[in-house]
Amino acid sequence: MNAEQAYETMIALSREETLLASCLDLLEWDEEVSMPRDGVEHRAEQRALLAGLVHDRETDPRYEELLAAVEGSALVSDPESAAAVNVREIRRSFKKERRMPRALVEEWARVTSIAQQTWAESRRNDDYASFAPWLEQIFALARERADAVGYEGTRYDALLDDFEPGMTTERLVDVLSNLQQRLVPLVASFRDTPASSEMLERDFPLERQKLFVESAAAALGFDPRGGRLDVSQHPFCSAIGPGDVRIALRYHPRDFGQGFFALMHELGHALYDQGLDRAFYGTPMGDAASLGVHESQSRLWENHVGRSEGFWRHFYPPLCDAFPEALNDVSLDAFRRAMNHVAPGPIRVNADEVTYDLHITIRFELELALLSGDLRAAELPGAWNELYERHLGVRPRNDREGCLQDIHWSEGLIGYFPTYSLGNVYAAQLFAAAERAVGPLEESFARGEFAPLREWLREHVHRHGMRWPVPELIARATGEGPDASYLVESLTRRYRDGH
Amino acid sequence: MNAEQAYETMIALSREETLLASCLDLLEWDEEVSMPRDGVEHRAEQRALLAGLVHDRETDPRYEELLAAVEGSALVSDPESAAAVNVREIRRSFKKERRMPRALVEEWARVTSIAQQTWAESRRNDDYASFAPWLEQIFALARERADAVGYEGTRYDALLDDFEPGMTTERLVDVLSNLQQRLVPLVASFRDTPASSEMLERDFPLERQKLFVESAAAALGFDPRGGRLDVSQHPFCSAIGPGDVRIALRYHPRDFGQGFFALMHELGHALYDQGLDRAFYGTPMGDAASLGVHESQSRLWENHVGRSEGFWRHFYPPLCDAFPEALNDVSLDAFRRAMNHVAPGPIRVNADEVTYDLHITIRFELELALLSGDLRAAELPGAWNELYERHLGVRPRNDREGCLQDIHWSEGLIGYFPTYSLGNVYAAQLFAAAERAVGPLEESFARGEFAPLREWLREHVHRHGMRWPVPELIARATGEGPDASYLVESLTRRYRDGH
Repeated sequence: MNAEQAYETMIALSREETLLASCLDLLEWDEEVSMPRDGVEHRAEQRALLAGLVHDRETDPRYEELLAAVEGSALVSDPESAAAVNVREIRRSFKKERRMPRALVEEWARVTSIAQQTWAESRRNDDYASFAPWLEQIFALARERADAVGYEGTRYDALLDDFEPGMTTERLVDVLSNLQQRLVPLVASFRDTPASSEMLERDFPLERQKLFVESAAAALGFDPRGGRLDVSQHPFCSAIGPGDVRIALRYHPRDFGQGFFALMHELGHALYDQGLDRAFYGTPMGDAASLGVHESQSRLWENHVGRSEGFWRHFYPPLCDAFPEALNDVSLDAFRRAMNHVAPGPIRVNADEVTYDLHITIRFELELALLSGDLRAAELPGAWNELYERHLGVRPRNDREGCLQDIHWSEGLIGYFPTYSLGNVYAAQLFAAAERAVGPLEESFARGEFAPLREWLREHVHRHGMRWPVPELIARATGEGPDASYLVESLTRRYRDGH
Repeated sequence: MNAEQAYETMIALSREETLLASCLDLLEWDEEVSMPRDGVEHRAEQRALLAGLVHDRETDPRYEELLAAVEGSALVSDPESAAAVNVREIRRSFKKERRMPRALVEEWARVTSIAQQTWAESRRNDDYASFAPWLEQIFALARERADAVGYEGTRYDALLDDFEPGMTTERLVDVLSNLQQRLVPLVASFRDTPASSEMLERDFPLERQKLFVESAAAALGFDPRGGRLDVSQHPFCSAIGPGDVRIALRYHPRDFGQGFFALMHELGHALYDQGLDRAFYGTPMGDAASLGVHESQSRLWENHVGRSEGFWRHFYPPLCDAFPEALNDVSLDAFRRAMNHVAPGPIRVNADEVTYDLHITIRFELELALLSGDLRAAELPGAWNELYERHLGVRPRNDREGCLQDIHWSEGLIGYFPTYSLGNVYAAQLFAAAERAVGPLEESFARGEFAPLREWLREHVHRHGMRWPVPELIARATGEGPDASYLVESLTRRYRDGH
């Protein structure tokens, strides 16, 4: 078998694996959005079966032979070529997956499927006790996973690698503690800002929120023929496949920001998924660079676009038309300030941009403690509330707005939270670079033009898939390696100016 | 390997096969109800892959060995035992499936997936020309399928067997032509009945229709925790798995009957699926006896319940509360007569009970001609309209209400339509037997009690799965073999009395 033949076979395997995994994605989407409650056990069985079959393909022993035939051949001599990238990433994933026992993969799918439904029920009823045993089990299984795949530094590295390839716990502690140190005084400097966001808590009828959000999504470039908007208990974006990217949002009738920022966030994910190169679907070159980069897209649209003055100069008039009762006495300037109001609160997804990363450092600290076993699931609420009080000065009134607020752990996403902060770092840096390249973005937003930013991101980020390791992708797009200063500077400038 | 071990392994294989097939069911449900339009090609690939994997399992060579170890053993000496039934049916399906080439199975899934979307688009735009090549291709593939699995009588027998095991084209021609002969004079005797159903074409706002239908479904025994109601272009019921049975309906704002009868029909299917024995899920004992029996349940609830006087004595008052504008001048009696108005029309799913089977005989005749090649897809509209004129005296105004009305052929369901008429035959006979057993059913309906009928059906039909061949199932439930006289008598009595 020559290198070309081996490569072709390998790509066919990779595409079939992705296609099968995309069936699992649909099962997961449906579980969040559509599935009736009593379907949960059957769904867990379905997911376990498909996860096992996907794992079989990921660990297909033919890969070893195929990789050997291609690695070192002329086909991969240019490390930036699609072939070289695909071979590099398939090797990385194969090496990791083959160490994972199939039984563990199935058990993981089964447990996280039921745990999600338990979490949803527990959250609805503010009943942490019924969720705690599942959380304990998930962290126990996470330890097994980490031990199975192995790690050089700490156990958490193995999990982190699923979301941010190449990132280590050590480096992450560096980035996050540095960020925390710089954000704490910034947050403190806003402590005296008077509350000015009560108008966001007036009546915003759900049906009209949905209509506004749909029209905003279309204006920003989301194509309804290639996707849909739904309602779920936790906002998410799911890319089922080419031509099928789905956003799910959570609305609140007396909190306009909840639905709107969920849209902007998930839209950023959706635009990334829609911006990947379809010709490479089913291979690493057609897949996102990392979760951190994915989050950079969501955080960019959520914050740098959705909280900007230019955006609201364009969207505030139609918003007032949609909600005249709530907004007839609110000026554009007052509304925009409300959207940018800095106030530590208990809920991460509702957090303002400045305090947001403090929510992440709390999750990170707790994740490390739960994984090491220093913290038991039963002790989580106490530890959670203490950290919120210490870092943010707020105490959740109940577990529903405390440790039950996020779906991630129930889904088994451990090592995922830090990617939000990495995303914030990348987002600020990418936005600044885009602005240097295409001119003042706020002015184009004010004219209702979002294509210049979207196209710059597609050109410099989306279409490259996993071509480069993340630090190199950032460097090529922005001219320098990842640098958290852009985030701190951007927050300082925008929030100092705006208040 | 002893018989017990072989049987256990076989059942595990069967369950896994069903579990995988149920993932395909979800993909199909989603394609009808949720999927964005541009997702169609990816979905076709997903379905082809899963269909191929299901086929691999259906034809797993281990079955041969396992079946040999069990067949003839003491385990299956009682032919009514679960083991004997499962072995009998697994043998039947294995024998058939192993003759089907995997490539054909995949091609079939891919083509029918895209054809469904093309059909939906063609129907929306009343553009038969864009659908015709797909229909041509589907019938060509259907011939290939029939030739692959083989048949004793005619090619159509092979397809029929997928839906009504053991049924032959010859016997079906007998049943249907006999029915046609007896129905034609009956329909003729109603020709002079004055139109009295204009009130069903008043304004019935969709949201209130949905609410009414939801509450009716709950009253009839559909559990929302174990299922859901949705909207699709063509009504259907999909049993994803235990605890997850989904009904999709089509509503019309000026045709109350469309949504309501769709509910009653699909509810019958749903109650059957929910009445199967969960302990046998994934094996023939936990699967429906045949499509004809499935249709008997839908047609029973649609016609013998949903068109009955007792039903409306209970449901008419809440209906008037829901639609006071449309119904304030309509008496219960006038409404009930409208629901039972006999008038030949072009649309099968809206057809009254008396003319309904004539729609089926037309489909049957056309299916036979398309399969043999005597009729080409391009010639279908002409042939269709001619048969409607000849048998029903109506001419469709366009293909949308003509040959584009049904989804079945685009889904590859060839040999399925006749099961509706078989269903009508079984339904009348089962309803009569239930009434003999539990007393006057209309009186219990009038009291809002549907459990006596539902439980009788569960006891005598649902829970038995594929225990007996259909004629024996009917004989055990009713005391005699399938007999179309019950249908003709029931129609004659109920419609003569009612008019």
